[in-house]
Amino acid sequence: MSNQRKHLKLGVFLAGTGHHVASWRHPNAQADGSINLSYFQQLAQTAERGKLDMLFLADSLSISQKSHPNILARFEPFTLLTSLANVTSKIGLAATASTTYSEPFHIARQFASLDHISQGRTGWNVVTSSIEATASNFSKDEHLEHSSRYKRAEEFVDVVKGLWDSWEDSALIRNKDTGEFFAKEQLHTLNHKGEFFNVRGPLNVPRPPQGHPVIIQAGSSEPGQHLAAKTAEIIFTAQNNLKDAQNFYKSVKDKALLYGRDPNEISIMPGIFPVIADTMEQAKVKYEELQDLILPSIGLSILSEYLGGIDLTHYSLDSKFEDLQIEHINGVKSRYELVKKLAESNNLTLRELYKSVAGSRGHHIFIGTPQQLVDKLEEWFINKGADGFNIMPPLLPEGLDLFVDQVVPILQQRGLFRKEYEGHTLRDHLGLQKPVNRYNN
Amino acid sequence: MSNQRKHLKLGVFLAGTGHHVASWRHPNAQADGSINLSYFQQLAQTAERGKLDMLFLADSLSISQKSHPNILARFEPFTLLTSLANVTSKIGLAATASTTYSEPFHIARQFASLDHISQGRTGWNVVTSSIEATASNFSKDEHLEHSSRYKRAEEFVDVVKGLWDSWEDSALIRNKDTGEFFAKEQLHTLNHKGEFFNVRGPLNVPRPPQGHPVIIQAGSSEPGQHLAAKTAEIIFTAQNNLKDAQNFYKSVKDKALLYGRDPNEISIMPGIFPVIADTMEQAKVKYEELQDLILPSIGLSILSEYLGGIDLTHYSLDSKFEDLQIEHINGVKSRYELVKKLAESNNLTLRELYKSVAGSRGHHIFIGTPQQLVDKLEEWFINKGADGFNIMPPLLPEGLDLFVDQVVPILQQRGLFRKEYEGHTLRDHLGLQKPVNRYNN
Repeated sequence: MSNQRKHLKLGVFLAGTGHHVASWRHPNAQADGSINLSYFQQLAQTAERGKLDMLFLADSLSISQKSHPNILARFEPFTLLTSLANVTSKIGLAATASTTYSEPFHIARQFASLDHISQGRTGWNVVTSSIEATASNFSKDEHLEHSSRYKRAEEFVDVVKGLWDSWEDSALIRNKDTGEFFAKEQLHTLNHKGEFFNVRGPLNVPRPPQGHPVIIQAGSSEPGQHLAAKTAEIIFTAQNNLKDAQNFYKSVKDKALLYGRDPNEISIMPGIFPVIADTMEQAKVKYEELQDLILPSIGLSILSEYLGGIDLTHYSLDSKFEDLQIEHINGVKSRYELVKKLAESNNLTLRELYKSVAGSRGHHIFIGTPQQLVDKLEEWFINKGADGFNIMPPLLPEGLDLFVDQVVPILQQRGLFRKEYEGHTLRDHLGLQKPVNRYNN
Repeated sequence: MSNQRKHLKLGVFLAGTGHHVASWRHPNAQADGSINLSYFQQLAQTAERGKLDMLFLADSLSISQKSHPNILARFEPFTLLTSLANVTSKIGLAATASTTYSEPFHIARQFASLDHISQGRTGWNVVTSSIEATASNFSKDEHLEHSSRYKRAEEFVDVVKGLWDSWEDSALIRNKDTGEFFAKEQLHTLNHKGEFFNVRGPLNVPRPPQGHPVIIQAGSSEPGQHLAAKTAEIIFTAQNNLKDAQNFYKSVKDKALLYGRDPNEISIMPGIFPVIADTMEQAKVKYEELQDLILPSIGLSILSEYLGGIDLTHYSLDSKFEDLQIEHINGVKSRYELVKKLAESNNLTLRELYKSVAGSRGHHIFIGTPQQLVDKLEEWFINKGADGFNIMPPLLPEGLDLFVDQVVPILQQRGLFRKEYEGHTLRDHLGLQKPVNRYNN
């Protein structure tokens, strides 16, 4: 079943006008993209035309005046993903849902329902909420500390999987003659009692067509890696060079072995932010065009967010990273480390750093031709830096159109990517088995 | 704007195979209806063909072996409603969401997103969760006591409305030239601090097209009536005769005046369970066909649920209501009173009572021809027993087809119902104004 290393996996991360922070200002951007349904539906159909494994929607549960325009005022993921399911038939549909301020019963239910609506195409990006301000949208005085968030996340996923198994696949008999609607012995009560949750069950949705929607994780910190190695089937990560990517790849796959899992059950998909044009020169011009659209005030506030929310407004734009006074980080630690490394290894000023970070938000920037991009993807794939990629087009819809029309065909010619969907579910696309129901073990 | 008393309002309550508890066993039933997307989409399109104001989906957050087949294993409302929005363009789309085990931020967000996706067609049936077992699906030791649930609900609705007002209607400027994505003074932080919730905001969805999705409530108890009179725009109720309906109608509209509201802003819509056929005799036969499909064990367990969960299995089916030993009710009080009255005024045995309750679940049963049904609806409408009706077809899709094809045309001929949609949003259909943003008052 598993053909993990034959074809690479491709997802597209859909985000409003594109991943570049100033993309909405570009003449070709649809500035209201974040809340325009037909726009999103067209993007989904383009991605399906490209035979991509899946599309992905991020999420957040709080905003401020300083948030990225794409996230300020947008659709909620379950409702949007449902609308994308309704205009596609093959592509996988993944979204982020936080384990920090939700209830396992609600999340289990919404993904199960969406898996039925999409006929087995959903994936859940399991995250912990890392922004302290989010607590205050959910009647909490204090944000959970980093390691507690991960413990809670692990238990949360376990409860959700248990709820998905409430009904065995053949439980619903619906025998009109006898009046037996379901087989009583095939409906299971979870009775979970744990540190964070007590959940009785059963779930009021039949078992999802995929058994369990595909589990995705993005934590790159040490507890994040452990959680991913234990439970994830796709891992999103931000890696800026092949060596780091290879180290991360090996580290996670080794941990998976420790947890008794087949490393081939996990697809590691670094994000990539591709600026593509017919020539390298044109691609560079295109990138600079976007960079020039970043307002300094916005660049700084994004950088501040990456550094755990510290106030940068009183530093000169010519300051260096070592000039900053940073005491305690309660944000995403891996992001902080990434930015620190980027700043120190390139000796960047604050101005250079915000431009570098704000544009791609820390993800690997590629600038070049479609051919060169394929060379890069192939290199990372063959050398075990990645099982596939999460494509983060700087500007939409243009960046996705270019990828599907100019990059995918070259990948197909080289035998690196499918020419047609061979299955129907996201698990089919990824070469993953349908999980056995825990009550049948 | 308000033409409340010119046309009656019509909603259809969509529930799997129909509202009769044994409907799934009927030869014409689609037994897997509860989890069949194209089936639901066809029902929605039929309702829109009938120019109905809205369709409605109920919800519950726990099940047991004894639950109604329609609710055991079904779609989750937000994802299903989104799928119905995508195949319709005019009809209103309402769903239940509980205030007892959810967070205002999540609920505000999902309805706001759905209101954008449907272009202003959503309604929220605000309920409190009345089943003690639900607590154990949400890591709670004890279920909230009845009056606390209502206080929580009231605060919940207030927070949700506040979050919907986070963005003023014209806040999103998206000026590509200046880089001004939104007008800062038009984004508002709620900073709610109350007895049950502390919610900072703002919401990360633009203001819904309707301003606020339409608020629906169904509480018929005294605190339920007060909450409805204070906040609801549609009230669902179960009334079994015109006199009771008139009393309820007057009681709620009087309370609305007390709260400083225009009583015409509230549409009172009793549920009606219409068994329709070409002649009265055929309608009676159709009803008995359904009643005969109820298994006694199932009838009893439904009756038990209406009586707050008491165990009825050790009583003879020939017992009378006064033989039952009932001490304390923590379920829906108004339902309990309804059943008690039904049993005592008709001197029913347990067997007769469960048949009577289980079939229609306490709602007003109508048996007769389309003409007779219209007479009844007109009588209640003209005599201020109702502003409209929530149609609960015993058997689907048949019951909805009959209503749309045979009842609606007579209502239209008598000038009691619209021939075409005159507006686009659910508020338009109901003659309700778009609420002014609280920050513009």
